[in-house]
Amino acid sequence: MKKIKVSVIGSTGYAGKELVKILMNHRKVELVHLVSSSYAGKNIAEIFPEFLYKLDQKLINFNLEVISQDSDLVFTALPHTVSMGMVPELLKKGVKVVDLSADYRIKDSAVYQEWYKKELNQMSKEILLEAVYGLPEIYLDKIKDTSLVANPGCYPTSVILGIAPLLKHHFVEPLGIIIDSKSGTTGAGRKPSLSLQFAECNENFKAYKVARHNHLPEIEQELTSIYFEGDNHKQKQQEKEIKVSFTPHLLPINRGILSTCYLSLRGSKKEEEILEIYQKYYHKAPFVRIFEPPNLPEIKYVAGTNYCDIGFSIDERMGKIKIISVIDNLLKGAAGQAVQNMNIMSGFPETCGLV
Amino acid sequence: MKKIKVSVIGSTGYAGKELVKILMNHRKVELVHLVSSSYAGKNIAEIFPEFLYKLDQKLINFNLEVISQDSDLVFTALPHTVSMGMVPELLKKGVKVVDLSADYRIKDSAVYQEWYKKELNQMSKEILLEAVYGLPEIYLDKIKDTSLVANPGCYPTSVILGIAPLLKHHFVEPLGIIIDSKSGTTGAGRKPSLSLQFAECNENFKAYKVARHNHLPEIEQELTSIYFEGDNHKQKQQEKEIKVSFTPHLLPINRGILSTCYLSLRGSKKEEEILEIYQKYYHKAPFVRIFEPPNLPEIKYVAGTNYCDIGFSIDERMGKIKIISVIDNLLKGAAGQAVQNMNIMSGFPETCGLV
Amino acid sequence: MKKIKVSVIGSTGYAGKELVKILMNHRKVELVHLVSSSYAGKNIAEIFPEFLYKLDQKLINFNLEVISQDSDLVFTALPHTVSMGMVPELLKKGVKVVDLSADYRIKDSAVYQEWYKKELNQMSKEILLEAVYGLPEIYLDKIKDTSLVANPGCYPTSVILGIAPLLKHHFVEPLGIIIDSKSGTTGAGRKPSLSLQFAECNENFKAYKVARHNHLPEIEQELTSIYFEGDNHKQKQQEKEIKVSFTPHLLPINRGILSTCYLSLRGSKKEEEILEIYQKYYHKAPFVRIFEPPNLPEIKYVAGTNYCDIGFSIDERMGKIKIISVIDNLLKGAAGQAVQNMNIMSGFPETCGLV
Amino acid sequence: MKKIKVSVIGSTGYAGKELVKILMNHRKVELVHLVSSSYAGKNIAEIFPEFLYKLDQKLINFNLEVISQDSDLVFTALPHTVSMGMVPELLKKGVKVVDLSADYRIKDSAVYQEWYKKELNQMSKEILLEAVYGLPEIYLDKIKDTSLVANPGCYPTSVILGIAPLLKHHFVEPLGIIIDSKSGTTGAGRKPSLSLQFAECNENFKAYKVARHNHLPEIEQELTSIYFEGDNHKQKQQEKEIKVSFTPHLLPINRGILSTCYLSLRGSKKEEEILEIYQKYYHKAPFVRIFEPPNLPEIKYVAGTNYCDIGFSIDERMGKIKIISVIDNLLKGAAGQAVQNMNIMSGFPETCGLV
Repeated sequence: MKKIKVSVIGSTGYAGKELVKILMNHRKVELVHLVSSSYAGKNIAEIFPEFLYKLDQKLINFNLEVISQDSDLVFTALPHTVSMGMVPELLKKGVKVVDLSADYRIKDSAVYQEWYKKELNQMSKEILLEAVYGLPEIYLDKIKDTSLVANPGCYPTSVILGIAPLLKHHFVEPLGIIIDSKSGTTGAGRKPSLSLQFAECNENFKAYKVARHNHLPEIEQELTSIYFEGDNHKQKQQEKEIKVSFTPHLLPINRGILSTCYLSLRGSKKEEEILEIYQKYYHKAPFVRIFEPPNLPEIKYVAGTNYCDIGFSIDERMGKIKIISVIDNLLKGAAGQAVQNMNIMSGFPETCGLV
Repeated sequence: MKKIKVSVIGSTGYAGKELVKILMNHRKVELVHLVSSSYAGKNIAEIFPEFLYKLDQKLINFNLEVISQDSDLVFTALPHTVSMGMVPELLKKGVKVVDLSADYRIKDSAVYQEWYKKELNQMSKEILLEAVYGLPEIYLDKIKDTSLVANPGCYPTSVILGIAPLLKHHFVEPLGIIIDSKSGTTGAGRKPSLSLQFAECNENFKAYKVARHNHLPEIEQELTSIYFEGDNHKQKQQEKEIKVSFTPHLLPINRGILSTCYLSLRGSKKEEEILEIYQKYYHKAPFVRIFEPPNLPEIKYVAGTNYCDIGFSIDERMGKIKIISVIDNLLKGAAGQAVQNMNIMSGFPETCGLV
Repeated sequence: MKKIKVSVIGSTGYAGKELVKILMNHRKVELVHLVSSSYAGKNIAEIFPEFLYKLDQKLINFNLEVISQDSDLVFTALPHTVSMGMVPELLKKGVKVVDLSADYRIKDSAVYQEWYKKELNQMSKEILLEAVYGLPEIYLDKIKDTSLVANPGCYPTSVILGIAPLLKHHFVEPLGIIIDSKSGTTGAGRKPSLSLQFAECNENFKAYKVARHNHLPEIEQELTSIYFEGDNHKQKQQEKEIKVSFTPHLLPINRGILSTCYLSLRGSKKEEEILEIYQKYYHKAPFVRIFEPPNLPEIKYVAGTNYCDIGFSIDERMGKIKIISVIDNLLKGAAGQAVQNMNIMSGFPETCGLV
Repeated sequence: MKKIKVSVIGSTGYAGKELVKILMNHRKVELVHLVSSSYAGKNIAEIFPEFLYKLDQKLINFNLEVISQDSDLVFTALPHTVSMGMVPELLKKGVKVVDLSADYRIKDSAVYQEWYKKELNQMSKEILLEAVYGLPEIYLDKIKDTSLVANPGCYPTSVILGIAPLLKHHFVEPLGIIIDSKSGTTGAGRKPSLSLQFAECNENFKAYKVARHNHLPEIEQELTSIYFEGDNHKQKQQEKEIKVSFTPHLLPINRGILSTCYLSLRGSKKEEEILEIYQKYYHKAPFVRIFEPPNLPEIKYVAGTNYCDIGFSIDERMGKIKIISVIDNLLKGAAGQAVQNMNIMSGFPETCGLV
């Protein structure tokens, strides 16, 4: 199988940097162009000395002709609402795209507009149906066949993977789901802001965007789809059935998300039953690891890896189940998953470059 | 008003050290004896150089006669199940006691035994009724009149203060309460252990004691009492009504607890209504600060202080309310609250030495 | 002794905030105006919720008439080269000033210009001789009598206090002095910048401004003065005699500086001799604590206090002495020392409000 | 080239864990036995869940027959003075050894005894001459031919690589060298101790073992050898010529060492001259990166890698040069360098498994 030519647009953000790190060592990839509007003209090793002696490549400005002509596949690691200005053009030129922004994650463009405060442009609306939500553990076959992957958000990845088997098997009530998530600071991006200064985050912990975080519609869309899978009729009757209460918090660490999910069990369930549906659901997923009770995952087990580790504890007194799901927000929550999607889209082994 | 003579037993743990720091500057207190079985014979400034030039006092072994003769009031900052060996003797000698352990917090000694895996000794069972749960915002009058305060646990302080007004006014359902708490590492004490080594906690985050944390009975006892207050009949009929799902997590910071509490609102409530019951409930409490939405408290606002800061957010879509409550686990969650109790027991201003 | 009226200009930087925290509890101070050009019109508790329920004061814009009329003493906690625009006017209006910038620290205005890349304005040059370098352990008497204190820099405070006794007694060679300093991130101020973002500082350590840090002239000026004290003739003959090699580093902590100073001993010296000159030099200094070998100070012993802790170790093999000096950069290195200076200028006890 | 069989003794310390991580993915290595006296009988993934789904291997007790029969090469990652009990026996059985302890680093067994407070056993004294100090950038050819590598200490690696070119070319005086080093906490090992608890290290910084750290003889032995290379006569005349003043400090981070080295330049040197000797000295070294002034390395650039990054700054005013050298203490300072040595001893590419 020959190499593909790959470019990264937005290569000097935190996710972009991780993409470059993975791709430069990926045996099926020739890294062609690194685009950065902020640092065009500089060598990437000037911006990130980690690349010294390892990668000697100039950062360039975006140029549709050049990028599309030279690349088989492009990663767009851009802010939300910026991606939509480039992705449709790239697709039209026959380039495959893995988009790390939120622009193509939401199936209903009205919902997108409501949450992201901007209307999708016309070209983007037209390609929205082609876009596959890039969670390989769920949409493997669709990812194989698409030219446009909407790479999931970091919080949604941890949450959806964490509770999908319970919803799929209707082991839990679809109502009253509570998600308490905690993320390291790289999740907020590399743009300087007072609230992300060291002395403001260090020795601190806080909830934020408590009333409204824009990862919520994405979480609900996917959970709903999982729960009502094969039963579209019922879902449509009841409209968007599954609602969750989602609260993100900011951890004083660089990388990692831990989501604690609280769901109501439907009837009494044994640990072994739960374990079995998780193991079965993920038995072909190379990056999901299930912990047997009473063991639980911790952020340090997945930091620097593409794994999603999942554990659980049944709370019989309350009739509840708690699920703990951890990922590295920059890898399984962004760049790692993006490469996993590229692997699938390109017919490479799913884990190539990621272990 | 003259000074009282005070001793601290267990003065070289994290809570004990904070007690000494507060008491040495307390204008109504003469600090008499500092007891430490680990470091007896040494000067406290040898153990904690922070005290150099400020406090020149030798650590001694526990001696009932000496301590009780020289002290009006004693703080026992000892591990659970150790306190019960000293507290009854001290009381019998006429000394007032603020006990920072869990030994006298649980009204039902069978429940204590179930959770702490040890039976209360006979003398302790006899004084259990005298013991007042030392949450001044709720039990101010009882604290005034008692000789024995059971100083609350750190997690329970943050949780109970955080949601008491909602329960008191029956604004929320007493069922399905979910508490997701996060604590700094000093909450686990000063005894060396692998899981608390720097390199194990740093850049990490985890849930722990998920199935069973021994602060749970204390939380449920107090919430139940608040909810059914003045209606003992109903409570007794239904036995221990209020159950909560409680999940503690370990933060890579030294000090502070943030509890995120999820409750179901009874009917629709407006922000102003919620704000009003909180402000009214705490209008005489000098150490509780209520944040007006959308402002929310953060751990850094209370670290190093005796405050409990509380904020909330109504989630109309889910019919839920989220409450964020933060404290410094070593102050309002331990030593600070203990001194607040001492102030009340001694007729001093409640904030003396604490602001 | 009656209270004095005090205002703070630049009250929403890290040093300004500490000033307000100290002054609001200072029994000899009435806090009159808080000036902040960034947040004028807001309440300080909106910017720093730590002040909720404790300080209810509006931030205002600078107004010379108002400030000078209402204040006996003003703290200017402004960036370098900004102070000089306000300080002379305030002095002319009869207001005492403690200036936390570098503008009046350097006695030779040409040196100031060389290092700070801006010329002192004429009015500032005229008052430069009045300005007293505000290191109370050295200039106590001059501070008593002045109207303008140039509050020392954070690094210089740790370095000068750390080695002054050795230089004063000519126990060490004045040549080849090496200072390796490490500071927490608040030393760099509260203005957002990429290099101070959490994810950039956390789990990192680096040297910075290695070739040229503008605290150097201040350090050399004062060390020279100490070494040649009472022997101006010799000093003038030889020009600026004492040069040091100074290297600052950035620690991933909020507060604190540790300076490791390497000097060559003149002949063999015993620990007791060294200890004696330190204890004698600082026997009247309430905020300097000398550690007896082999004990050494650590940053955590002084964080949150106005102390400077000093320890040393003789390296006989090399004929060297290492001195370790630690301070809290925001207190003894800025706001705490500024209040100490105010106390001295106002005839208050030196430690008032600081212990 | 076929695979070699490798075992790790001491596989559950921090360095041992890193060894296993590297070796399990090393294409020339078959990982045979993992020895751990503390956890024998358990699976390594029970101790370190990071290995889940990746390495399924039981930890065993040390057994000379089994280990030596099954292994071509063994890593001993044991505490100092413990290695000497196993290494000679392994060598006698024909197994190659890379020893990560200090037991074979010091050429003069009397010096070892003085600093490590224990006499080398007879068998170890006999093999001491065979042992090669495992710094590949200096002893590449000797490492190729030996059966026993004494893997360098973490501090010595950063210091020796940092200043070797200057000493080799006699660009600096061999007297008065000052080394100010700062290390993350994993350097102190995984054994629980109070001083390494999170709350004791976090938000702190301190110097330690200031008077005497046992990495000193190793540093001085190697620097002396470099300086007097090819001139043994002179060296012997003057005995151990090069002495350094070495001060280690503890950083509140997990991994990384930064050493700031201060040396006196012999005459005036230009930046280009310095740069040239560094680039020449290391032009074949795949893991040393030289930074051109004014750029300087930071710990984050090397954390998680086997690189040693070196930068410098000439201080003309003082006639000094400052060198900044950074490594990951667990990789280039321990496990990474050990594998680099294994590669060289086995005829593999030097970087195999390490990039």
